[in-house]
Amino acid sequence: MEYVALVIYDIRDDKLRLEVARFLKRAGLTRIQKSAFAGLVKPSDRANIEAGIRRVTRGWSNYNVQIYFITPAAYSQRIVMSEGYSLEEEDEFLI
Amino acid sequence: MEYVALVIYDIRDDKLRLEVARFLKRAGLTRIQKSAFAGLVKPSDRANIEAGIRRVTRGWSNYNVQIYFITPAAYSQRIVMSEGYSLEEEDEFLI
Repeated sequence: MEYVALVIYDIRDDKLRLEVARFLKRAGLTRIQKSAFAGLVKPSDRANIEAGIRRVTRGWSNYNVQIYFITPAAYSQRIVMSEGYSLEEEDEFLI
Repeated sequence: MEYVALVIYDIRDDKLRLEVARFLKRAGLTRIQKSAFAGLVKPSDRANIEAGIRRVTRGWSNYNVQIYFITPAAYSQRIVMSEGYSLEEEDEFLI
């Protein structure tokens, strides 16, 4: 069964935050907030996402990353309240 | 059946962000990241949480709040990767 991976993070360092975001994009997830990504993942990809984040964060401090695997139904029933909100891509600001 | 409400937010304005956090605390949720709360909620409380956030954010702009209702099993199986991370209470900094 496929699950939606929901990844939320709070990372102090700009460079590490950007690296984590880039990894999540490469893993096929979509940015849903400045510090949150989500996407449908195959069971075989679950461990890869965890391993990838562990690799990127290795040796760093001051971070907290959480991965939730939820059903597509739970994801589609999420409630979004938003006004005048646009997602900035960090890549444009950090070269 | 009881679900875990997972609330993640990206809010530009300091005052609004603090108000949302205070509401979530009053609603019985626990801060799990700087901009994320979680907690077990009764079915009858689900609508209250949504209504409360809508009330607090009314008239504001530049915000995105998402509520996920996930099973306690999915919550307990979350993966947390953290190092040198401490949760600051915004209240101490914004009087």
